Amino acid sequence: MSTDFIAEPVVAIVVAAGSGSRLGAAVPKALVPVAGVTLLRRSLTQLAAGGVQQAVVVVPAETAELFDADLLDAPLPVQRVVGGAQRQDSVAAGLAVLPDVIADAEALVLIHDAARAFVPSDVVARVIDAVRSGADAAIPVVPVADTIREVDEAGSHVIDRTRLRGVQTPQGFRRSIIEAAHAVLSDTGTPVTDDAAAVEYTGHEVTLVAGDRLAFKVTEPLDVALAVAVAGGAA
Amino acid sequence: MSTDFIAEPVVAIVVAAGSGSRLGAAVPKALVPVAGVTLLRRSLTQLAAGGVQQAVVVVPAETAELFDADLLDAPLPVQRVVGGAQRQDSVAAGLAVLPDVIADAEALVLIHDAARAFVPSDVVARVIDAVRSGADAAIPVVPVADTIREVDEAGSHVIDRTRLRGVQTPQGFRRSIIEAAHAVLSDTGTPVTDDAAAVEYTGHEVTLVAGDRLAFKVTEPLDVALAVAVAGGAA
Repeated sequence: MSTDFIAEPVVAIVVAAGSGSRLGAAVPKALVPVAGVTLLRRSLTQLAAGGVQQAVVVVPAETAELFDADLLDAPLPVQRVVGGAQRQDSVAAGLAVLPDVIADAEALVLIHDAARAFVPSDVVARVIDAVRSGADAAIPVVPVADTIREVDEAGSHVIDRTRLRGVQTPQGFRRSIIEAAHAVLSDTGTPVTDDAAAVEYTGHEVTLVAGDRLAFKVTEPLDVALAVAVAGGAA
Repeated sequence: MSTDFIAEPVVAIVVAAGSGSRLGAAVPKALVPVAGVTLLRRSLTQLAAGGVQQAVVVVPAETAELFDADLLDAPLPVQRVVGGAQRQDSVAAGLAVLPDVIADAEALVLIHDAARAFVPSDVVARVIDAVRSGADAAIPVVPVADTIREVDEAGSHVIDRTRLRGVQTPQGFRRSIIEAAHAVLSDTGTPVTDDAAAVEYTGHEVTLVAGDRLAFKVTEPLDVALAVAVAGGAA
């Protein structure tokens, strides 16, 4: 049986393990509704539209059952797993169930923050295309709008803004590479900023693709205001 | 005549020289209305509420007259001047008319981007207080929300985000210091990122004070959506 013309499957690990406390919400952040649709549901819809075929959703242990209703009739097949204390632990929990979800060792794995609920589908597609074209890791980035200073011993200094990029998700990887990276981090107890930094730690290169400001992360109440505006504007 | 107990006057140079083209607006950016009130008017109101007593508004040469109606009954005394090609030229144009506006050589000068129309008055007050307390320059900064990468020869690398700060306005200065700095820049033709960088260039220190995400700069249509949400929420 030839598989030459069959593209590798694409699975997303969606990290939805954050609490809603900074938003003043009584539910986990990913279940906060914006114009009647939760951040998690919006993320799953955008991922599916961009080419993701299956998802593992990593949820907080204490409130896992709250997710059942939201995951009914999800826009793609979803497995729910319980996350850990840190984001890195939650990603590891998602990776741990991949063998149950998908057999293909050469699958593409996208790791996405549920709070980036308005990520355009073309950003998702660009990440997938970059990994499919051979990148070890591909991440969406955007220019930095403000002047940026770095605090130093003497006070602070301006960094050349044209060289800076803000990092978004989903971040995409060849399955074997992200699994190996997280195994090393787990063995050594090394903390990393994000999943791209994890694969860099194990010697792989990270490819930058064009992100989009719409892939902003909902963190504070002001972000919810923006989300409502975007959701309304999208009709 | 003793002036021991009289606080120095505070004048703001408000840079409103940008076009509205990135917003798809037919008017200069500062005249774009949000919930019926222009960005410029909102900036002037916030500056006045924070302790600014007079303002010099720097406008585009081609559309200067369009500002007349908006500056009628401004919340503080305003002088309109025409700006230059670059932001730095516009600030210089504003500084050039200061002698007509205010006699006190030890006045405090705040330089503000009109597009940061929702700057909270307490941010303005913190900048003023810092300069009044002896800072050569004081600027509002906020933490950086996303992971940041710096592009380098080998690709890119993550910068420790906890050391980074996003720079906002108003930036505050002792009058003599900002005038001298711009004179040097003008003589040498040195371009700078912002006014704090200008005074650093002449050997002065920059003090960081707490900014606020509400002091975001309206640059793209997505920022207008956020502005409308904020204006609506503020009732």
